Amino acid sequence: MTEDRYQQGLEKLKELTLSGDENPTGEMDIGEGFKDIAPDLSKYVVEFAFGEIYSRPGLDNKQKVLTTITALVAQGKPQIEMHIKTGLNVGLTPDEIVGCIMHLIPYTGFPSVLNALTVAKKVFAERGVSVTLPDDN
Amino acid sequence: MTEDRYQQGLEKLKELTLSGDENPTGEMDIGEGFKDIAPDLSKYVVEFAFGEIYSRPGLDNKQKVLTTITALVAQGKPQIEMHIKTGLNVGLTPDEIVGCIMHLIPYTGFPSVLNALTVAKKVFAERGVSVTLPDDN
Amino acid sequence: MTEDRYQQGLEKLKELTLSGDENPTGEMDIGEGFKDIAPDLSKYVVEFAFGEIYSRPGLDNKQKVLTTITALVAQGKPQIEMHIKTGLNVGLTPDEIVGCIMHLIPYTGFPSVLNALTVAKKVFAERGVSVTLPDDN
Amino acid sequence: MTEDRYQQGLEKLKELTLSGDENPTGEMDIGEGFKDIAPDLSKYVVEFAFGEIYSRPGLDNKQKVLTTITALVAQGKPQIEMHIKTGLNVGLTPDEIVGCIMHLIPYTGFPSVLNALTVAKKVFAERGVSVTLPDDN
Amino acid sequence: MTEDRYQQGLEKLKELTLSGDENPTGEMDIGEGFKDIAPDLSKYVVEFAFGEIYSRPGLDNKQKVLTTITALVAQGKPQIEMHIKTGLNVGLTPDEIVGCIMHLIPYTGFPSVLNALTVAKKVFAERGVSVTLPDDN
Amino acid sequence: MTEDRYQQGLEKLKELTLSGDENPTGEMDIGEGFKDIAPDLSKYVVEFAFGEIYSRPGLDNKQKVLTTITALVAQGKPQIEMHIKTGLNVGLTPDEIVGCIMHLIPYTGFPSVLNALTVAKKVFAERGVSVTLPDDN
Repeated sequence: MTEDRYQQGLEKLKELTLSGDENPTGEMDIGEGFKDIAPDLSKYVVEFAFGEIYSRPGLDNKQKVLTTITALVAQGKPQIEMHIKTGLNVGLTPDEIVGCIMHLIPYTGFPSVLNALTVAKKVFAERGVSVTLPDDN
Repeated sequence: MTEDRYQQGLEKLKELTLSGDENPTGEMDIGEGFKDIAPDLSKYVVEFAFGEIYSRPGLDNKQKVLTTITALVAQGKPQIEMHIKTGLNVGLTPDEIVGCIMHLIPYTGFPSVLNALTVAKKVFAERGVSVTLPDDN
Repeated sequence: MTEDRYQQGLEKLKELTLSGDENPTGEMDIGEGFKDIAPDLSKYVVEFAFGEIYSRPGLDNKQKVLTTITALVAQGKPQIEMHIKTGLNVGLTPDEIVGCIMHLIPYTGFPSVLNALTVAKKVFAERGVSVTLPDDN
Repeated sequence: MTEDRYQQGLEKLKELTLSGDENPTGEMDIGEGFKDIAPDLSKYVVEFAFGEIYSRPGLDNKQKVLTTITALVAQGKPQIEMHIKTGLNVGLTPDEIVGCIMHLIPYTGFPSVLNALTVAKKVFAERGVSVTLPDDN
Repeated sequence: MTEDRYQQGLEKLKELTLSGDENPTGEMDIGEGFKDIAPDLSKYVVEFAFGEIYSRPGLDNKQKVLTTITALVAQGKPQIEMHIKTGLNVGLTPDEIVGCIMHLIPYTGFPSVLNALTVAKKVFAERGVSVTLPDDN
Repeated sequence: MTEDRYQQGLEKLKELTLSGDENPTGEMDIGEGFKDIAPDLSKYVVEFAFGEIYSRPGLDNKQKVLTTITALVAQGKPQIEMHIKTGLNVGLTPDEIVGCIMHLIPYTGFPSVLNALTVAKKVFAERGVSVTLPDDN
C-alpha cells in the first residue's frame, strides 16, 4: 500500500538524517524543490529509494551509505556531499569514509579520489570531526 | 622498502583469496598473464593495489570488497566476478553481496544491476552458496 | 496501493510488448531470472519502472522508448537489444530507431554508434523489417 | 559541396534557434569563442553536426532534441541547458522535457535526474513557461 | 567540396592502414556493414572522421592514434583492437602502445588497463611483434 | 626501496613542472592539501603515480602528458587544467594540445571537446602562448 511505503520511506529518512517527525528528511534532498515541475519526484524518492531500496534487508545502514558514497565517487556526482553527511549520521567514522574514498584509487584513478576528498574535508570541517591519523605515512 | 610492500601485498592477497604460501594470489588476477608485454604490471598490482591500498587502515576487508564491487558495478567492468568471489572469501554473505548490488538501483539504474546480478548468480552457483530469501517482497 | 501499481506495470508491459494476459511481460527482461537471489527485483521493475515511470504522463510510448534507447547507447548497455524490439512494438519505425542512434554521433562519438547499429541490424533482420533508404547518400 | 553543407547547417540552426539571417545560430554555442585556438571547430559544428547529422531524415526536430537532451543527462554535460532551450524552440512542451528527464530515473539513477531538473527549472523560469501538473501525485 | 573531403579521407585511411587504392580502408571498420540501415554512415566516417579530423594539422599520425587508443581505453570500447593495429601501422612500437595503456593506471584504474592489455597482447601475437622488456621489473 | 621511489617521483615532478629542489612539485596538485584527512595520499601520488608510472619507459614525457590530457577529456575531469600546464612545460605546443582535444570529437563527441577547449584557452591566455592558426579551415 502506498501509504505504507511512503511512511516506511520517512522512517528510514529519519534514521539516516537523525531527524524527528517535524522534518523527517533533514538535510537530505528528496526533490522537494521540484514540486512545480515534477510533483511526483519526491514521492518516488521517498517511496522507492528510501521506502523500498534503503529499507531492504541485506545491508545495514553503514554499509548502504558506504555503497552510495562509492557509487557517487565513481560517477563524480555532487550528491556525494549529502551522503557523506548521512554517513556520519549513521555512524561511519571519518576514517571509514576516507578509507572508502582512498580504496577507490585502483578502480577509479586519482582524480576522482582527489575530487571526493575535497568534499569530505569540507564536510568534516563543518561537522567538527576529524580523522585519526595513521602513524608515519 | 620494496621488499616489504611486495610481501605486504602477498600477505593481503592470501587473506583475500584464502590461499597459502605456494599460491598466494589464488583466483585473483594480478596481471601475471602480461609478463611478456608489461612485466612490471603485476608488481604494481601486488605492491600498490594490495600492499598499500588494500592494506590501508580505515576499512576492514569486508568493507573494502563491498567498495570494490560497487565501483565495478557502477563501471560495468567484468572484474566484478573475481571480486564477488573475494567477497565470499572474506565473509560477505550472499545477502550482503546482493544487497550491495540491489542498493545501486537508484544510483546506477536497473541495467547495471541486472548485469551484475547475472554474474553474482553464476558465482553463487559455482560456490554452492545461496541467499536467505526475505519474505514475500 | 501496491496491487494497483503492480497491475498498472503489467498493463504497461502488455502495451510495450504487445503481449496478452497469459504472458504480459513478453520478451522484456523484468528480472524473473533472479527470483532465487533477489526475489524483490522483478517487483521493483514492474511496479516502479513500468507501473510508475513508464506510466507517467508527459511522453508517449514512442518517445519513452526513444529516450530509453538513447540512454542505453550512451552507456553502452546490452539491454539496448530488448528496447529496440520494444521500440518496434510501439510503432517506432526502423528509420526512427536508426535516426536516433545516428543522431548520437556528435554526442557519444562513432564507436558507441557502431556498436548500437550492430544490434539494431540484428533485430531488424530477426523481425524482417527494413529501413527506407534516403536517396543519394 | 562544402558551401552547401555549411548553408544547410545554418538553415537547420535557424530552425532550432528560431533565429533569422543576421544571427542564424541564436543562443546555440557553435564554438565561435574558439576562433583563436581552434578556428575550424565552428565549421565542424555547423557543417557536420547541424548540416549533416541534425539535417538527416529519420527523426523530426522534436525527436532529435529529445535524443540530445537524453544523451546529455546520461553524460552529465552542462550543454543540457542550451538544448533544453532548443527543445522549447522546436515545440517540445515543458511536460515533454520533464517527462524525458524523469523517464531516465531507471536508466541513469536519481542524481543525474536531480541535476538535470535543476537546469530545466532554471530555463523554464527564464522562458516563463510551466509544466501542466498531473493531479494527485 | 564533398569529393575532396571523401578523397582526403581515403588518402588518410591509406596512410593509417598501409593499404593501396584497391582497398584503401584496409582493416579499418568504416561502417560499410551498415549500408542497408545507415547508408550515410560510412560517408561520415570517411569524410568527417578521416577526411577532416584525422587530416587536421597539429598532431602527427602516431600522436593521433595514441590519443585514439587512450580514449578507447578510458571508455572501454572494443574498437581499441582496430586502433592498436593502426598504431602499429603508423609506427607506434609495442612499447609505446603498452606504455600508453600502462600510463592510464592512475587515471582510469587497473581494470580498464587489464582489459586493454588483453587486446594488445592478442594483436601483438597476430602481428608477430613484441615488447622490448625493461630490465629488472 | 621507498626512499628511491619517492626521490624518483620528485625528480619526475621537477621535470614535469620545471621546478627546482625547493618546490619540486610546482603547480602540480599531489594531494598535500589532504595531510589532515589522508596523510598517505601524497606519498602514493609521488611514489606510485610519478615515481613509478610517469617514470616508466615506453613513452616520452610529451606522450605521457598527451595521454593524460586525453583521459581527462574523456572523463570530463577538472584536473585537465593542471595537465595542460604540464603539457606546455614539457614542450607540447598549443597546436599539439588543441590538436589532441580536437582529435577526440569522433570519440567523445562535441560537448567534452568544447568543455576542454574552454580550459585550454584559459591556460594559454595565462601563459601568454598561442596557437599557430591553420589557414582557412
